[in-house]
Amino acid sequence: MKITTPLLFLDEERCKRNIQKMANKAKRNNVVFRPHFKTHQSLEIGRWFKEVGVTKITVSSLEMATYFSSEWNDITVAFPVNILEIDTINELASKIQLNLLVESMDTVTFLKTHLTHPVHFFIKIDIGYHRTGVAPDNTELIDLILAGAKDSKLNFVGFLGHAGHSYGCKTEEQILKIHTDSIEILKNLKANYQTRYPNLILSTGDTPTCSIAEDFSAVDEIRPGNFVFYDLTQNNISSNTLDEIAVAVACPVVAKHPERNELVVYGGGIHFAKDRYEHPVFGTTFGIPVQLTGITWNEPMKNVYIKSLSQEHGIVSMDKAQIAHYELGDIVYILPVHSCMTSHAMKKYVSIQDGRAIERFN
Amino acid sequence: MKITTPLLFLDEERCKRNIQKMANKAKRNNVVFRPHFKTHQSLEIGRWFKEVGVTKITVSSLEMATYFSSEWNDITVAFPVNILEIDTINELASKIQLNLLVESMDTVTFLKTHLTHPVHFFIKIDIGYHRTGVAPDNTELIDLILAGAKDSKLNFVGFLGHAGHSYGCKTEEQILKIHTDSIEILKNLKANYQTRYPNLILSTGDTPTCSIAEDFSAVDEIRPGNFVFYDLTQNNISSNTLDEIAVAVACPVVAKHPERNELVVYGGGIHFAKDRYEHPVFGTTFGIPVQLTGITWNEPMKNVYIKSLSQEHGIVSMDKAQIAHYELGDIVYILPVHSCMTSHAMKKYVSIQDGRAIERFN
Repeated sequence: MKITTPLLFLDEERCKRNIQKMANKAKRNNVVFRPHFKTHQSLEIGRWFKEVGVTKITVSSLEMATYFSSEWNDITVAFPVNILEIDTINELASKIQLNLLVESMDTVTFLKTHLTHPVHFFIKIDIGYHRTGVAPDNTELIDLILAGAKDSKLNFVGFLGHAGHSYGCKTEEQILKIHTDSIEILKNLKANYQTRYPNLILSTGDTPTCSIAEDFSAVDEIRPGNFVFYDLTQNNISSNTLDEIAVAVACPVVAKHPERNELVVYGGGIHFAKDRYEHPVFGTTFGIPVQLTGITWNEPMKNVYIKSLSQEHGIVSMDKAQIAHYELGDIVYILPVHSCMTSHAMKKYVSIQDGRAIERFN
Repeated sequence: MKITTPLLFLDEERCKRNIQKMANKAKRNNVVFRPHFKTHQSLEIGRWFKEVGVTKITVSSLEMATYFSSEWNDITVAFPVNILEIDTINELASKIQLNLLVESMDTVTFLKTHLTHPVHFFIKIDIGYHRTGVAPDNTELIDLILAGAKDSKLNFVGFLGHAGHSYGCKTEEQILKIHTDSIEILKNLKANYQTRYPNLILSTGDTPTCSIAEDFSAVDEIRPGNFVFYDLTQNNISSNTLDEIAVAVACPVVAKHPERNELVVYGGGIHFAKDRYEHPVFGTTFGIPVQLTGITWNEPMKNVYIKSLSQEHGIVSMDKAQIAHYELGDIVYILPVHSCMTSHAMKKYVSIQDGRAIERFN
């Protein structure tokens, strides 16, 4: 594999292990595993999920749903309905089981008059993240939505939550607390509504809670996404070990500045995106270099991190002694801070095992 | 123009005014205007520069140089030479006047044995940003590079600096100080080397100093890029007025949460990129909404800003009274924090004047 410009490598073995592990957890809990595909956005990686029995998926845009609809026929779009895309909604609903998220009467009113094919819908519940969703105690709105959807192409299937605030945790205990609290909210809703809707389901499951918690028996389906690759943000909050991170950006060395303990690589904001995190030792960090060993990468190099990113430049903080081992044109493999955004920015993957290009949307 | 998903609008009139204004400043100073095209990455916008007499350009990658080489025959790649791309370098050098940046003997040694066609090169000088470049007092290395390049396809043309630390300024005075200091560094180098190299030129000029300073008579060429669109980061450090910002992302409203003074739009990190800045009143800010008026946009809405971005969600902080004016499917026009990165993320522009798609690389 000849590298000339920044390239996103995928460790297929790690990725498949991450998929298998999460599938096992879903199985043990007897819940449906409906993974979020916004992280990898690849039909090929999607097929690895089929191998562990996955038949339903989650995406974050109708564009992505359209891409995956060639191979998947039960797709949840985990984003508020964008009514301007009603044509795409109708087209998808004519072909597959499309599941939408509803959180307002305006959406119900619009969909009732504009849907040409039946869809399933979840009421999106705000389980503590406060980004979107109906407040769980706003039963007035929930009742209005349910009444409004009656005798229409809108079929209520259950309550869906996303505990995105788990990304802000610092310890396993905090993540478990969010898990317990958010499941409690959903359980109460189910208890209140299941007499009227005996088949309603509960859907939840972000990567941190799905990685740390063991008991999901109170819900019916989980939708983690990032776990397929994991990353430094997740590692920082204890969701994954470093050897579970399945993607790394290969960056050519373009300049050496031992006088200020810096190596400059070709690899910037347009490759990694600009997510950052606070590393306990290094402070603000944009990536961590690892050493390549055969067909995977090892533990991070000691005391080495990406201290800043420009559009194309990455500045690696590294001491003089280590810099002396590098020559121009050498490759530094760097773990990303946020694998969803890095994968979106890079647009393609190359397998670290066999150098094969792996198909990706866009 | 029917908007269904996030769309990047370009105000062509503002953009052309920004181009004309900078061209006038270059002319007044009798310096070559070699604009950086990494911000717009568009052959069509490039032609607007031709209209004001520009014949030479700057880019930040060989990929971009290749794209622009269909219409431009004098291109500087303002990034350290990536020796792994020697084939592309040779191909470009066979077709156009290619200008490279050199900052080490390793690069000289490599290019001497691998170049198949003549190139021009600048010695990249660290004029205070400390990202790349030779320290200005390291005349030993400068002499080595010059001696090493003798009798090769490497033709020395001058010293080049980038005062990227101007982006970290807070006031006009700080920007002017950086301008004076960095020009002084380059002037001293010219004084030391012009007996031996009477035609050597000095190249500098980031957007903040080129916007604020008036006197560039000591240098020979300026290379600003961001000014073509400007953005909130530049406005925040006083490089531009808000009505000079020439791009805005149109984002559909997908949810309303008056109970927490928030509007949710379709427009996230994959559209804006994730650059942020510290707004003096709002704190960490990812964008500022403006009101559309005919074929442009006006001053920002009062007390409204983007408080966070997820992959697809943008959270607009807005009070209840203002939220009441919005319906699902309405469009919010949002000024970007960093227009280079937003334009790269969005990949295409639509003219706000006539709805025409404007070609862009990638």
